[in-house]
Amino acid sequence: MKLHMLKSALSALLVFGSVHTTPAQEISAMQAPKVVSPEVGPDNSVSFRVFSPNANEVTVNGSWMGFRETLPLTKGEDGVWSATIDPLPSSMYHYNFFIDGVSAIDPTNPEALRDGTRYASLLMVPGAGASTFELNKVPHGNISKVWYQSPSLESYRRMYVYTPPGYDSGNDKYPVLYLLHGAGGDEDAWSALGRANYILDNLIAEGKAKPMLIVMTNGNAWQTSTLQNKPGVETITRENRAQFQGKFEESLVKDVIPYIEKNYSVIANKDGRALAGLSMGGGHTITASIENPGTFGYIGVFSSGIFDANADMAELEKKFTALKASGVEKYWVACGVDDFVMDSNKRLLSILDKTGLEHEYHESAGGHTWANWRDYLSIFAPVLFN
Amino acid sequence: MKLHMLKSALSALLVFGSVHTTPAQEISAMQAPKVVSPEVGPDNSVSFRVFSPNANEVTVNGSWMGFRETLPLTKGEDGVWSATIDPLPSSMYHYNFFIDGVSAIDPTNPEALRDGTRYASLLMVPGAGASTFELNKVPHGNISKVWYQSPSLESYRRMYVYTPPGYDSGNDKYPVLYLLHGAGGDEDAWSALGRANYILDNLIAEGKAKPMLIVMTNGNAWQTSTLQNKPGVETITRENRAQFQGKFEESLVKDVIPYIEKNYSVIANKDGRALAGLSMGGGHTITASIENPGTFGYIGVFSSGIFDANADMAELEKKFTALKASGVEKYWVACGVDDFVMDSNKRLLSILDKTGLEHEYHESAGGHTWANWRDYLSIFAPVLFN
Repeated sequence: MKLHMLKSALSALLVFGSVHTTPAQEISAMQAPKVVSPEVGPDNSVSFRVFSPNANEVTVNGSWMGFRETLPLTKGEDGVWSATIDPLPSSMYHYNFFIDGVSAIDPTNPEALRDGTRYASLLMVPGAGASTFELNKVPHGNISKVWYQSPSLESYRRMYVYTPPGYDSGNDKYPVLYLLHGAGGDEDAWSALGRANYILDNLIAEGKAKPMLIVMTNGNAWQTSTLQNKPGVETITRENRAQFQGKFEESLVKDVIPYIEKNYSVIANKDGRALAGLSMGGGHTITASIENPGTFGYIGVFSSGIFDANADMAELEKKFTALKASGVEKYWVACGVDDFVMDSNKRLLSILDKTGLEHEYHESAGGHTWANWRDYLSIFAPVLFN
Repeated sequence: MKLHMLKSALSALLVFGSVHTTPAQEISAMQAPKVVSPEVGPDNSVSFRVFSPNANEVTVNGSWMGFRETLPLTKGEDGVWSATIDPLPSSMYHYNFFIDGVSAIDPTNPEALRDGTRYASLLMVPGAGASTFELNKVPHGNISKVWYQSPSLESYRRMYVYTPPGYDSGNDKYPVLYLLHGAGGDEDAWSALGRANYILDNLIAEGKAKPMLIVMTNGNAWQTSTLQNKPGVETITRENRAQFQGKFEESLVKDVIPYIEKNYSVIANKDGRALAGLSMGGGHTITASIENPGTFGYIGVFSSGIFDANADMAELEKKFTALKASGVEKYWVACGVDDFVMDSNKRLLSILDKTGLEHEYHESAGGHTWANWRDYLSIFAPVLFN
């Protein structure tokens, strides 16, 4: 900048971000004295701190703990509550404080995550375990929030589309992974918590995965987008939910795939289409693939399975046999040993065995967690489109 | 869905989102008893509620209040703290609770906003005042998070690009509004808080604004993207900030515009380019436009001005005279009567008067707020590209 007279003034203005009496942007916080939280030690132990001279009790719950478990923080003489936990494996975690029982994101941590209707603070413990999904110094693909018409759901809906590095600059045709979230999530989940875009950026840079698009839809058929129900559906109850069953899977095949294949430079056949999902999205994956044999060449079911213990296995066998006959390149299943869906998962494995549908099974430690789903994607993506 | 045996199981799984003992997605919250918060009454009064039998003090601060003002909530016998405020004008607001002095987003409100390093809960008070930036039943443009090389800043950076409804389906060439955030913000600010995409969706649907692209860059030259500093810049201090002065404006003209004009279907001349920004981004707008006369046909300066009271006005006059000679279609200035940058704004107006650079001035109520910036955009966009 050559304009000398604006320099000092701009410099003053640039500081507003850290001057709490005159924030240049608007969200105000009655700022506590400076504390550092979270702080990751050289040994990967983690300290949490929050300032409150007046609270009676401060606790923390993190994704490395049980859902209902909490760890108490201890109050220091300066009014700062703190707790240090044992070293964590290098990975991505999230946590909430509870100030006298009220859930709060860490007010000094600038990075929060959104999972459906909840927010939590991000904790990244660096090292090998986090490198697969960190924002590394590699070429990045772009994510677009794309609106499309869904005649099957009679609504105008939103999805996220990841296009790999180089997509805009060439005329190549790319394969597509349709990647489905679980219950409680939406089209935001696989990038916000799943970091699918960074996982693919990193795998593609290392030559471990083929460049591909990832299409991340909203699997809640009554929603048009995050938090927005379709017109006419004000609240969702067990009763009106029933009318949407199977509808999302139908819209995926009838609306989403044609939209993508019309508007993007992609391979428009089974060998260029993969479908995978976690939990409820794994259920959607199973249904959409057996109801539409010959549509997807690659199928991934994460932490899911045949949920109904009383399912008509004979009818299911017929469908899986037809799916097998349609030519599946890869059927990939993963579940954590502690996952509460293990029985459902086993029912899926047994039907795959019975029908002789060749598959790979990856059993991991842990349960129904994003840590596992990020891992599963980073193992699954490399086997696609080979 | 025809697959009867999965129906009841899927139905059970679909409910996970509201069963807190077994969330299908992972963020856990030790859930308080059901309270509704915020609740907007028929008269637009608003009630806030939060459950905490153990807190000593609960207050709320909202964007309709002063930065340091708080309103106390009163504890009921059921442990639910509450406060009801007088009717608010229909608009978008945000707020935080303070639980014994600790800032918290409202744990029962699923919508939170991000402004740089802070989070706050969203409050939408419906009605005419909010309709310009609500997600209405009109065609929506898409937002893409786009990575580009910035040789000027020697970094690989991210910006958001809004493409209007219909962009993908035709061969039209569109004009572009480059829209800059303020200090403390980043490339996320103009969509998250500014709702620029919805404002344009609505204006375009009503025929009040021309379909245009909006390019929302990251004006912090030391960052590559939200929260991510460029390699080699670990922390930002007053000292190392100095080296980046003027660099963003340079990169905007040398890197961003060429990238957009190469990769998008846009009009690549002054009459197809508008530049506007708020606060620090208004400063960037002033600098980039006078340093590059003939580049932008339309210029908007929101809540900003000549920050340096000791600026060399004679030299500035020369630059503004050259800008005028280059042919500016519209120079549009807006500021709130209570804004702390009013003196800077007046210096800008005086130099525009002195140099005879024809301009429109919009003076609003209020101060340095997103409520104003959303309004300014909704008034400014219609005067563009006519």
